Amino acid sequence: MKDTKKNTKGNVLPSIKDSFSDWYNDAIEKANLCDHSSVKGCITILPYGYAIWENIQKELDAKIKEMNVKNMAFPLLFPYKLLEKEKDHVEGFAPEVAVVTHAGGEKLEENLVIRPTSEVIIHSYFKKWIRSWRDLPVKVNQWCSVVRWEKRPRPFIRTTEFWWQEGHTAHATIEEAEAQAYDSICLYRNFCENVLAIPVIMAKKPQYERFAGADITWTIEGMMQDGKALQMGTSHLLNKGFVDSLEISFQDKGKGISFPTLTSWGVTTRLIGALIMVHGDDFGIVIPPKIAPILIVIVPIFKNDLEKSIVLSAVSKITVLLKKYNFAFELDDREEVTPGAKFYESEIRGVPFRFELGMRDIEKDQFTIFIRDIRQKENFLFENLDNFNLLFDQMIDCFQKRLYDKALQNKNEKTFYAEKLEQFVNNGFYITHWCGKDENKFKLESQLSVRCVLEDNILNKTCCIHENCSQNLLKIVLAKSY
Amino acid sequence: MKDTKKNTKGNVLPSIKDSFSDWYNDAIEKANLCDHSSVKGCITILPYGYAIWENIQKELDAKIKEMNVKNMAFPLLFPYKLLEKEKDHVEGFAPEVAVVTHAGGEKLEENLVIRPTSEVIIHSYFKKWIRSWRDLPVKVNQWCSVVRWEKRPRPFIRTTEFWWQEGHTAHATIEEAEAQAYDSICLYRNFCENVLAIPVIMAKKPQYERFAGADITWTIEGMMQDGKALQMGTSHLLNKGFVDSLEISFQDKGKGISFPTLTSWGVTTRLIGALIMVHGDDFGIVIPPKIAPILIVIVPIFKNDLEKSIVLSAVSKITVLLKKYNFAFELDDREEVTPGAKFYESEIRGVPFRFELGMRDIEKDQFTIFIRDIRQKENFLFENLDNFNLLFDQMIDCFQKRLYDKALQNKNEKTFYAEKLEQFVNNGFYITHWCGKDENKFKLESQLSVRCVLEDNILNKTCCIHENCSQNLLKIVLAKSY
Repeated sequence: MKDTKKNTKGNVLPSIKDSFSDWYNDAIEKANLCDHSSVKGCITILPYGYAIWENIQKELDAKIKEMNVKNMAFPLLFPYKLLEKEKDHVEGFAPEVAVVTHAGGEKLEENLVIRPTSEVIIHSYFKKWIRSWRDLPVKVNQWCSVVRWEKRPRPFIRTTEFWWQEGHTAHATIEEAEAQAYDSICLYRNFCENVLAIPVIMAKKPQYERFAGADITWTIEGMMQDGKALQMGTSHLLNKGFVDSLEISFQDKGKGISFPTLTSWGVTTRLIGALIMVHGDDFGIVIPPKIAPILIVIVPIFKNDLEKSIVLSAVSKITVLLKKYNFAFELDDREEVTPGAKFYESEIRGVPFRFELGMRDIEKDQFTIFIRDIRQKENFLFENLDNFNLLFDQMIDCFQKRLYDKALQNKNEKTFYAEKLEQFVNNGFYITHWCGKDENKFKLESQLSVRCVLEDNILNKTCCIHENCSQNLLKIVLAKSY
Repeated sequence: MKDTKKNTKGNVLPSIKDSFSDWYNDAIEKANLCDHSSVKGCITILPYGYAIWENIQKELDAKIKEMNVKNMAFPLLFPYKLLEKEKDHVEGFAPEVAVVTHAGGEKLEENLVIRPTSEVIIHSYFKKWIRSWRDLPVKVNQWCSVVRWEKRPRPFIRTTEFWWQEGHTAHATIEEAEAQAYDSICLYRNFCENVLAIPVIMAKKPQYERFAGADITWTIEGMMQDGKALQMGTSHLLNKGFVDSLEISFQDKGKGISFPTLTSWGVTTRLIGALIMVHGDDFGIVIPPKIAPILIVIVPIFKNDLEKSIVLSAVSKITVLLKKYNFAFELDDREEVTPGAKFYESEIRGVPFRFELGMRDIEKDQFTIFIRDIRQKENFLFENLDNFNLLFDQMIDCFQKRLYDKALQNKNEKTFYAEKLEQFVNNGFYITHWCGKDENKFKLESQLSVRCVLEDNILNKTCCIHENCSQNLLKIVLAKSY
């Protein structure tokens, strides 16, 4: 391995250390992931960004189907009055919804809302479908976009329209529903760790941070490079309010009447924001190989037609293999763009591997593999081409592992233990103890929020961060967050 | 092969001949394809219906990507004033749009519409992306739902919200754009014929039936069993209005300023309605094997635990193979449901093949394959299991071909030649000649519309259907339609 020089021709990004926020916006723009739209807070996801989302969907959809969950499509619109059925739910969502008052050239008799989430629609079907214990469990999911009016939008992280999957289930017993809510959050955690290479804390939200209408909200919390936490997925055990308001009940095995327990769970296009904020560097975004739309960019280097034919003929030996083993590659053979500009572009877009082939490589019967995360080059001899897929699979695994380890190191370095509010000097996860009251004290004064309540009971500190209290202490994670 | 008795226990469908419309609604309901919603004209697509849509998406998406079209996600909402930019377009869509006037708890400064189609959004990005001939062609696509207020909804065929793909492209020359519009309609035709087993007429719409803002609208028209035509997909060469209104231009190779030519094209969840109306019979819907979410239902038949263990052990020999060769099957081993009820259910849901295994089959070392379209049974000997995949692939191909041939026969039988309006006595495609004027005459009097203009110039008749005129005759297809 040898070090490479910086390939930062053309536009340069702000450095991550100087301004994480400017870096984030610039990196997204220069990687062509998304664009603004004519409606404030709404974005357009560009082809490269959407290809990442398609890969996320493909991975997650298969796992969701393995849980025996069926995909469906529910309506985009529902009557405003449906939202009002569940008290907590309407309080949570009413301030954020978009309302349709006119359609088909007329004022509507009743106002409609664009779904901010689909509990109230889906539960009305649950009521229809669930008659007997034989009908349970019901498990459905939909991939769609939802709209929640957003005052301070941020690409991928918080947008008025966002794309997600929402899973909704109904179960005969609370225990079974709890298991489903837990299985779903585990699925998300495993996906984040194994595919996105992002370690997370998985735990329950404190009561006041729960989803509007939930008895339990599980969360996975990631640690970004600037020390802020990001909620990356949630799974809810819903309260009886939904079931009661719609009067959903079923004949149980003993011929009595029982009430089902419901769950809902989702992850969104925010996951794209997460992988940018966790893995990116001053040279651009870095996409984990397992989710990369383009795993390899091939850049042939030549000065004249003779060199071109020699180089492209060598390239074709590689592309045959890449096709055979189904590695997603792009041959960047544009002649109006210099190799340097191509290098810069592939780095800023976070393509995991770049294969470079020039006459000097040909002479040594090799090609050069540039590895995006460590920004180092390795030579690959054509004589080893027979074992290419095995060797390259190893390189992919190492890449994923390095990304995960680096993210874990960042998370560990930014995890602190604190007893008093004064100790919160850096951004990061602060593990501390709390009586469960006066959350506004640290919320307003220090912009800190309780990310989750840890379940291990080893209370090595006994002092609440409110200092003058020490009763019923919860072990919690406090952090500034997106 | 031997005939089977009717398995129409439980609820029976209205017959297709007595009332096609009642049959359609009932068949959809009993096959659990979709359900109504709390907003008139909007539907919920149930798991079985959605699985058909997922298969349609999978097939089409791969073909669309082969045309070098990139998937994206554009916003659901755009300002009403954007719709007004293109004169024809606003006239076409303004009466149908849903308008958002309030959001985030406030009245909006400008009204927004839910996309009825995305030309005006996407073209605003085209303006941004297209600077030089090097930026062309631009080819994008999105899978999403759109909303057009529908006064007389019909499940899958005409719904207020429907799901579709919309492809949008920009080209340096008219010729290239025309080729794209043509390639896209060919893609749809091939998909309908090869995958959905539905023969179509592919031709251009007459001027007044074109998409709002198109110079050419290609259509594929299918013939339903009741003799009504169904527009199954369209592809448009857009007029200069869109480009002019947004002032989209680019630097051409000669350093002058040129204007791109745009296309758009789409197919919708209406395709599900089409396959129901073309292939269904009095026993329910029939799903072409190439698109069937469940290709095979296996029904084990036994009377006691001993028989059960014998039968299920034989079943496992088959399921191992089905998994190995990746055939989509479902083992219906519910014990509370009788085999007869399972037969009925699999038929009404149009599952192409049903494997039945009882003790009598075991004795003969065979299982029984019920073939849905012809409703006949075949025996399959376990000793032929080694060649199962080859033999079964043949059965699938024959099934597809039978469906296509039957649909073609229906189309041919319902295709007539006519010279005068009085000759339109049955429903069907009427090939006739027309001067291109007074379309309301047959539209209002006979509910007939011009489905398309045929391009072959062999005018074997020279008389216009308006009788007293014979100038500039077009060869057209007239039909009642959905």
